[in-house]
Amino acid sequence: MGKRIVIVGMGFGGIRAARVLAGKGHDVLLVDRNNYHLFQPLLYQVATAGLELESIAHSVRAMARRWPGTRFFLSEVTGVDCAGRALRTADGTIPYDYLIIGAGSVTNFFGIGPVERHAFDLKELADGERLRNHILTAFERAATEPDPARQRALMTFVIVGGGPTGVEFAGALVELVHFVLSKDYPELQTHAARVVLVEASDRLLAAMPAALQGYTLRKLRSMSVEVLLNARVVDAGPERVVLHDGAVIPAHTLFWSAGVKAAPLAAALDGPTGPGGRIIVEPDLTLPGHRELFVIGDMAYLEQDGTVLPMTAPVAMQMGIYAGRAILAREAGRTPPPFRYRDKGSMATIGRNAAVASAFGVNFRGYLAWLIWLLLHLYYLIGFRNRVVVLLNWLWYYWFHERQVRLITRRETPSRERHP
Amino acid sequence: MGKRIVIVGMGFGGIRAARVLAGKGHDVLLVDRNNYHLFQPLLYQVATAGLELESIAHSVRAMARRWPGTRFFLSEVTGVDCAGRALRTADGTIPYDYLIIGAGSVTNFFGIGPVERHAFDLKELADGERLRNHILTAFERAATEPDPARQRALMTFVIVGGGPTGVEFAGALVELVHFVLSKDYPELQTHAARVVLVEASDRLLAAMPAALQGYTLRKLRSMSVEVLLNARVVDAGPERVVLHDGAVIPAHTLFWSAGVKAAPLAAALDGPTGPGGRIIVEPDLTLPGHRELFVIGDMAYLEQDGTVLPMTAPVAMQMGIYAGRAILAREAGRTPPPFRYRDKGSMATIGRNAAVASAFGVNFRGYLAWLIWLLLHLYYLIGFRNRVVVLLNWLWYYWFHERQVRLITRRETPSRERHP
Repeated sequence: MGKRIVIVGMGFGGIRAARVLAGKGHDVLLVDRNNYHLFQPLLYQVATAGLELESIAHSVRAMARRWPGTRFFLSEVTGVDCAGRALRTADGTIPYDYLIIGAGSVTNFFGIGPVERHAFDLKELADGERLRNHILTAFERAATEPDPARQRALMTFVIVGGGPTGVEFAGALVELVHFVLSKDYPELQTHAARVVLVEASDRLLAAMPAALQGYTLRKLRSMSVEVLLNARVVDAGPERVVLHDGAVIPAHTLFWSAGVKAAPLAAALDGPTGPGGRIIVEPDLTLPGHRELFVIGDMAYLEQDGTVLPMTAPVAMQMGIYAGRAILAREAGRTPPPFRYRDKGSMATIGRNAAVASAFGVNFRGYLAWLIWLLLHLYYLIGFRNRVVVLLNWLWYYWFHERQVRLITRRETPSRERHP
Repeated sequence: MGKRIVIVGMGFGGIRAARVLAGKGHDVLLVDRNNYHLFQPLLYQVATAGLELESIAHSVRAMARRWPGTRFFLSEVTGVDCAGRALRTADGTIPYDYLIIGAGSVTNFFGIGPVERHAFDLKELADGERLRNHILTAFERAATEPDPARQRALMTFVIVGGGPTGVEFAGALVELVHFVLSKDYPELQTHAARVVLVEASDRLLAAMPAALQGYTLRKLRSMSVEVLLNARVVDAGPERVVLHDGAVIPAHTLFWSAGVKAAPLAAALDGPTGPGGRIIVEPDLTLPGHRELFVIGDMAYLEQDGTVLPMTAPVAMQMGIYAGRAILAREAGRTPPPFRYRDKGSMATIGRNAAVASAFGVNFRGYLAWLIWLLLHLYYLIGFRNRVVVLLNWLWYYWFHERQVRLITRRETPSRERHP
């Protein structure tokens, strides 16, 4: 009889670990508080009315069906009894022989209370819908707002963080306004809408080569995104955003993508933590002193060749595959080699026909990079039907400059009520 | 300069009135509390994981773009000053020369308090998502429920009302369980799941010819739906449903489609009301004493050849077109002829390859009726992209017996909290 292997978190790492371990004679239990895998990198396209939310999520049970020996358990994990080898959940305790934890990350507001209360972020499926409803409601309110200053504030969007999420969201949002909403709201001067991207360092896409950083900056500015470098947001209210130099931007929408930290579950493990609350793992991704407990993805802190591995999907995927194989190796009496991340490059899309990609030392930008981005995202999206629906939406947008999911599906919840 | 025409409600009637009146030199204002037109007849397919909710809704502004002279106003209508010719909304008062009201209907629980507190219904977009989440969560809970009786109750669904909605939902639900969830939940005896359809009269689909009623009953029973005729639900709790004869069905889900009544706005009009609070309109669909105020769709009560016009989409569509044309006729100095509904027939789908349709005195059933149903629903769905996505989902289901939208997008809200 095989071992009881529990995998917590059906993100990029968790589902790859499950795939490796399925059908190998072990009893594999998949645990997540949601019944779906979320393709987070496209969440910003849900927020900008480009994709229906169902197309970037895929049922875990639909996947588990094809993975022999796996079962799914929908519950919230509340803690781990590392010594007793038992996982604590809201619906009971589960013993394990091996545990793989990939619970991901949450937004890091760095303790700036007013920002945390007023900002939107994009981590969960519902966040995409909530932000889309908020953006579209802001335009509806602007359409009937008699005061020009308030009207402009309703059409002003401040995005904090010049990483891939901030850049991609800024580009998609400005295109939504200029290509789509401009036609929807003939009564509004939509060209007066402002998309302001605030970045604390002196460059966008810090992980990219300098040439691509420059291209990204020029491209965004040509699309009329106001990029503020060396700038920080220090305060916020429902109708304004305050910068480090005291400048006030009247804006009804603040989007925060300036940092993430390990999911709260990391604090429940008996392990040393590094920056962002991430668990400092051994070279084989296990918790120090617990060779049966693997931590993968954004929760794991590991240095390689002197640099910390980034909190990205490719790292999580490779860690998930490694953890699965390491367990199989151990069960076969072999000692797994240490984990080693192979960097295949990074990319970000800016807008129509415009993206940047860096892979194997080669830089791509513009149309070719955009095409690579598109094909890779379709490839990694789970579920064949999802791929067809996403491709359909992208073609529609490409040909007709149309984003069809311009629905306000719920009355607006003011952002300040989101973090009670 | 043309007249100010206000249309309230972007349902089947409202959008057709708008289309008739667009580009005729009038100032047409479209008012709805949602920014989309909802294709209600397919809402049950959202609830049974067959369609994403975005695919059955279409942005009003996307439509209004192509209708010259129309504008959209997102607001909740609170009343009408019929004498002063002004519409009261949550965001201000709007004067009008002509007003067309098609605010639709709400579920009629006939004053049965416990049912109203515990039952689900399908009228709004959010209802479809809520019911889907509830059904899928019930199966997740059943998967870990040790008590066999409670487990079976979690997999028991009572549907009240043998009209088209009840029949279509029952068929789609039983197929979801037997074709899809049976593969998702190998740990559950899904064949023990119960779908109980309760109808107060002695037949299903009262508006259909007797031969099709018999076919529908036989077909549903062959699909293992328990059809109870001459039965009524008199009480309900979170875990049980009580019938008129005292029989108790342990069930966690109660779906109510046994009746509708006019939207509450009807009570705000100074007009005579008939059964279900519907406004008794003149033969030209106007409010008695107010030739400038038209009431269309489910809100209007009108008899034709001794029978009351039903509260259906075809009636609403024809009324919308009529109201638009009547205004144009009046403005041209002509008197419009009285409204006359042309009954083109009715239909309902039961399951895969099985539907009933009655048109122009001819009865169809089985595969042919199913194909007609499919094509007509695609035709009436608004938005070309929506049609493609819906067709894609249907083909997927047909070929692979798969319904992809098996997502629990929100933690369960107990049904009793839905009507505070």
